[in-house]
Amino acid sequence: MTKITYPLILVNFKTYLKGTEKKALELAKICEKVMNETDICIAAAIQAADLRLIAESVEIPIFSQHIDPITPGSNTGHILVETIKETGAIGTLINHNERKIKLVSIDKIIQLAKNYGLFTCVCASNPRIAGAIAALEPDCCATEPPELIGSGISVSTAKPEVITETVDIMKKINPNVVPLCGAGITSSVDVEKALELGTRGILLASGVVKSSNPEKVLMEMAIISKKFL
Amino acid sequence: MTKITYPLILVNFKTYLKGTEKKALELAKICEKVMNETDICIAAAIQAADLRLIAESVEIPIFSQHIDPITPGSNTGHILVETIKETGAIGTLINHNERKIKLVSIDKIIQLAKNYGLFTCVCASNPRIAGAIAALEPDCCATEPPELIGSGISVSTAKPEVITETVDIMKKINPNVVPLCGAGITSSVDVEKALELGTRGILLASGVVKSSNPEKVLMEMAIISKKFL
Amino acid sequence: MTKITYPLILVNFKTYLKGTEKKALELAKICEKVMNETDICIAAAIQAADLRLIAESVEIPIFSQHIDPITPGSNTGHILVETIKETGAIGTLINHNERKIKLVSIDKIIQLAKNYGLFTCVCASNPRIAGAIAALEPDCCATEPPELIGSGISVSTAKPEVITETVDIMKKINPNVVPLCGAGITSSVDVEKALELGTRGILLASGVVKSSNPEKVLMEMAIISKKFL
Amino acid sequence: MTKITYPLILVNFKTYLKGTEKKALELAKICEKVMNETDICIAAAIQAADLRLIAESVEIPIFSQHIDPITPGSNTGHILVETIKETGAIGTLINHNERKIKLVSIDKIIQLAKNYGLFTCVCASNPRIAGAIAALEPDCCATEPPELIGSGISVSTAKPEVITETVDIMKKINPNVVPLCGAGITSSVDVEKALELGTRGILLASGVVKSSNPEKVLMEMAIISKKFL
Repeated sequence: MTKITYPLILVNFKTYLKGTEKKALELAKICEKVMNETDICIAAAIQAADLRLIAESVEIPIFSQHIDPITPGSNTGHILVETIKETGAIGTLINHNERKIKLVSIDKIIQLAKNYGLFTCVCASNPRIAGAIAALEPDCCATEPPELIGSGISVSTAKPEVITETVDIMKKINPNVVPLCGAGITSSVDVEKALELGTRGILLASGVVKSSNPEKVLMEMAIISKKFL
Repeated sequence: MTKITYPLILVNFKTYLKGTEKKALELAKICEKVMNETDICIAAAIQAADLRLIAESVEIPIFSQHIDPITPGSNTGHILVETIKETGAIGTLINHNERKIKLVSIDKIIQLAKNYGLFTCVCASNPRIAGAIAALEPDCCATEPPELIGSGISVSTAKPEVITETVDIMKKINPNVVPLCGAGITSSVDVEKALELGTRGILLASGVVKSSNPEKVLMEMAIISKKFL
Repeated sequence: MTKITYPLILVNFKTYLKGTEKKALELAKICEKVMNETDICIAAAIQAADLRLIAESVEIPIFSQHIDPITPGSNTGHILVETIKETGAIGTLINHNERKIKLVSIDKIIQLAKNYGLFTCVCASNPRIAGAIAALEPDCCATEPPELIGSGISVSTAKPEVITETVDIMKKINPNVVPLCGAGITSSVDVEKALELGTRGILLASGVVKSSNPEKVLMEMAIISKKFL
Repeated sequence: MTKITYPLILVNFKTYLKGTEKKALELAKICEKVMNETDICIAAAIQAADLRLIAESVEIPIFSQHIDPITPGSNTGHILVETIKETGAIGTLINHNERKIKLVSIDKIIQLAKNYGLFTCVCASNPRIAGAIAALEPDCCATEPPELIGSGISVSTAKPEVITETVDIMKKINPNVVPLCGAGITSSVDVEKALELGTRGILLASGVVKSSNPEKVLMEMAIISKKFL
């Protein structure tokens, strides 16, 4: 199963040492195990140079962490959508808070990804921006208040109004775009709260990748998510 | 009269030699004359270092061409909204095709400008992006297909569907944001077409600034615009 | 006297509230007073939108804080060297730590500034980069370890070896480029140390701009500098 | 043999369709064949997402086309030097004309690459910039006048003075940095000229990658290069 289903747990491996190369492979296998045991979709966003290694070895949906708004040609040092597709990745993050890009580039990347059947998850830092992104028609939009990213303080607990406002705005502007949320999510309680507030999944990173027991954390999150199938 | 009224003719002086320093002042005085004679609002977007010179000398609405998403502090080499306001400018362009910026910066600049009562005109390159911008709640959004900018081929003639689609999307997402259009506009016919298609004004540059007779061009554009008061 | 002489005290007004608009004018007049009383060159780097206001009102060398690598034309929202020159500014900062730019842009801006007789002061964050900048042939290069900027801990006291190494490398690569230093400089002792170590001036900001008594601070710095005339 | 030796022929695969994925692998095997038959070092600069595929399959030196100035951590969407090394790449391009970066980033990437034993080839667009790069102490610097890149008009024929001036400046500033040149190189005559003028290798792309017979082109270039062993 490498198709996206909801609720979705999307794990961003960033460039943490525990999220690159062989460590990334181990972690992706843990994601796969939890997905197989729970039937909850667990996807992994992987650094470009590791995509092929991971996508060849596991049966979970693999995302790129970024794509460049380019087509084949003279674009030394950029990341081409064709190649990302060819590695076995099925989707991409766009405009993550650590890789914020121009509005015009977000639009172009979404269109390029659609042409290649790649799933698009665009990141927003507040509800207004999530609304703007919904107008660009990606598959989903993950709202993350930047001040909570990596904080261990969950957006769903600390700022539930950010989530409900985001869900409302996105529904009004484009109900086809699926709302996710993220920032500070470390436990199944955080996940449950996020799903209760109307999102259909979460984007998280350190809560899993830097955990001493990622399997346990993911398993608990996946089990609680089954209530929202 | 330095308030924005519609139809609006917004002249972007860019960094054309005919649009900077003393030449900018001469051209701004022509804009002022046409505005006074026709009661059509004619605004001018001016390079930061020239803002004070122009804003002190004419009674038309003066725009900055860009503002940075910063607040007072350690931001060497950036453009501060407070200072732009203090020069006498009443608004700013944001995200012009020649100064495209990050989505998150567009959002932040709009909010900063609102705090200071500055009028915001954000530029879009297609209807989808205009929709996204409408969600960010600026005062107006000017859609310009990049391939027509400076071409002398008017968007209203060559791509009327871009305008009507933009007007529709923006109305649906946020009817408070005023649609403008631009790119290739050089004559009163182009302006009339643009206003008939549902925009409430135009953004133009070379058609006026590089014209051998900017007063004549502007006067004809302003006179035709009076039909849409 | 609006010519650069050494030792040079170059005060970066940044976008501090105390360094913009009317406050900038007051502070520039203090710089002028100290320069007149001591014959030590005191220059001020000013935000683009304030340049004309300040350059018209004082007789000290005025710098822009940034210029864009453009020539007249379709460059909305950028800062044109011709216009900076026309405001009365006589020089520009380039590549300040808060406005770091591409290597190719540094080179182009230096060449553009030379064409217009503008003095160029490029910033470096370590001795190796200062050497690279010396190869690009600006008028001077100010080395500032980023971690000390705004810290109140002076580079000349905390990292004297950074200064001596910079002076050595720059002399070897291009002895025509004048070495300045900066970061954390708040007192005449810091200035004296910097000049003793072989620089021919300092770049500073908060130590003067945010001081409760900028005139006193500058006066003491200028008096100590007279030893190095 | 995956060590760099001189004369060096460094083939930039860019994101040409003929330089990505399986086509990249075919082309890399051609490079390997020519290297094995001639003992001339032929290296290939490959898109990040393809690095592992190519580096595992051929015995020529593989370069990344770009690295980001980051260390492990929260850097979503960036390219980590550790990972590039781990793919089997032995070096990286930096600051290619199609991926120009900030001066401070060039310096940081060179230092990061050195820590991991990666070979660094920094690109310059003119002799002055080549001098600046030499001061940053990379392994080599490839000078390419941008207007000739992809033109089919060889820098060594059209602008020999660019090459000789570059070689002189680099030797003066840092004789340990090896000068390469590039832009418009399509034939063994171009290569011979470049080596005669004092460079120790070439950087090229379309002349090989888009050629109808890359093996023939490369073989002729490698054979002529043997004169300069």
